[in-house]
Amino acid sequence: MPKLLKIDASPRGDYSVSRALTAIFAEEWLKNHADGTVVGRDLFKTELPFVDLPWIAGAYTPAEQHSPEIAKAIKISDDLVDELLSIDHIVLGAPMYNFSLPAILKAYIDHIVRINRTFTPKYEGLVTGKKLTIFLTSGGVYTPGSYTEAYNVESGYLKQVFGFIGITDVNIVLAGGTAAIDMGQKTREAVIDEFKPAVIEAAK
Amino acid sequence: MPKLLKIDASPRGDYSVSRALTAIFAEEWLKNHADGTVVGRDLFKTELPFVDLPWIAGAYTPAEQHSPEIAKAIKISDDLVDELLSIDHIVLGAPMYNFSLPAILKAYIDHIVRINRTFTPKYEGLVTGKKLTIFLTSGGVYTPGSYTEAYNVESGYLKQVFGFIGITDVNIVLAGGTAAIDMGQKTREAVIDEFKPAVIEAAK
Repeated sequence: MPKLLKIDASPRGDYSVSRALTAIFAEEWLKNHADGTVVGRDLFKTELPFVDLPWIAGAYTPAEQHSPEIAKAIKISDDLVDELLSIDHIVLGAPMYNFSLPAILKAYIDHIVRINRTFTPKYEGLVTGKKLTIFLTSGGVYTPGSYTEAYNVESGYLKQVFGFIGITDVNIVLAGGTAAIDMGQKTREAVIDEFKPAVIEAAK
Repeated sequence: MPKLLKIDASPRGDYSVSRALTAIFAEEWLKNHADGTVVGRDLFKTELPFVDLPWIAGAYTPAEQHSPEIAKAIKISDDLVDELLSIDHIVLGAPMYNFSLPAILKAYIDHIVRINRTFTPKYEGLVTGKKLTIFLTSGGVYTPGSYTEAYNVESGYLKQVFGFIGITDVNIVLAGGTAAIDMGQKTREAVIDEFKPAVIEAAK
């Protein structure tokens, strides 16, 4: 029974384009996987503290040595890693903030990149056999081949860091130009419709 | 009277290398600027919420239109921007987490990159005439010219995003190899001593 993990990182709720794209993807994916289930991971409904000293202590020592404070700090990381290891396909709605990941998405990544859990001390990824589909929404447009392409620091980084933990089958769909909605030049629906064929294709 | 802003992003407190390097820098800088003052900005003592919907509403509308909820969400951003605009030199202790910025440092950046406050609608930086010195500490070593250099996503991004808001005089000192401390191969003091000449040089 295949499982899809749907990760949303936009704070815009019903105004979000990335959330609309991951929702359409999940719907299509379910059509193509009749026995599949979708697990939602809304980062704005997850408590994601910044990595602190107890967290670091927890990540580098065996669980049986953990004080209550350390056990508490590392628990969310353990939970997120367990979740990630239990699924087959991830769809990630990733807005771009200031040419890169929103801090909340980096907070998630700092929790799931864990020695002996998602990579080995020899830097071998442990999260293998998964597929990752990313809808990267951005105000500006960073079309490959255009002069703005180099400003997109997010695509390369996401491939690098997910690759590091073993997720190498990554499909990034660039969904640029959402600023047109804020400027009143396009409706949110029009922008979503524009990317819908790519979403449906990605869910095949 | 020149002002130095000392930003620290490491959670390691007295175990931190980056905090030691920014402290030495501040000390040296004060020797070289007898009439100078140092302002501390410890990100771990700053409440840095993730950008949310009220924050976005606040950033894109005039202050006189802000509801109490919006005014509250945008206040920390206003305070951090005011602080940044008021100083002459910034020293940033920036650890590397998973090849890039710790989430807490990205949270800070998401607060200070603000339309009409730190950049114009035409993408001109408004934070001009400042110097930025960065001590980039990392477990691994990312020496320019080595095969690992390309894995360092942080240096290029920090230059890009600070340059975007107008801070183009940037000196990044790579302080790689702190993993040797965790592995018991070197003392923290030995690693700090190794980088001390570069810190003193940077403070000139």
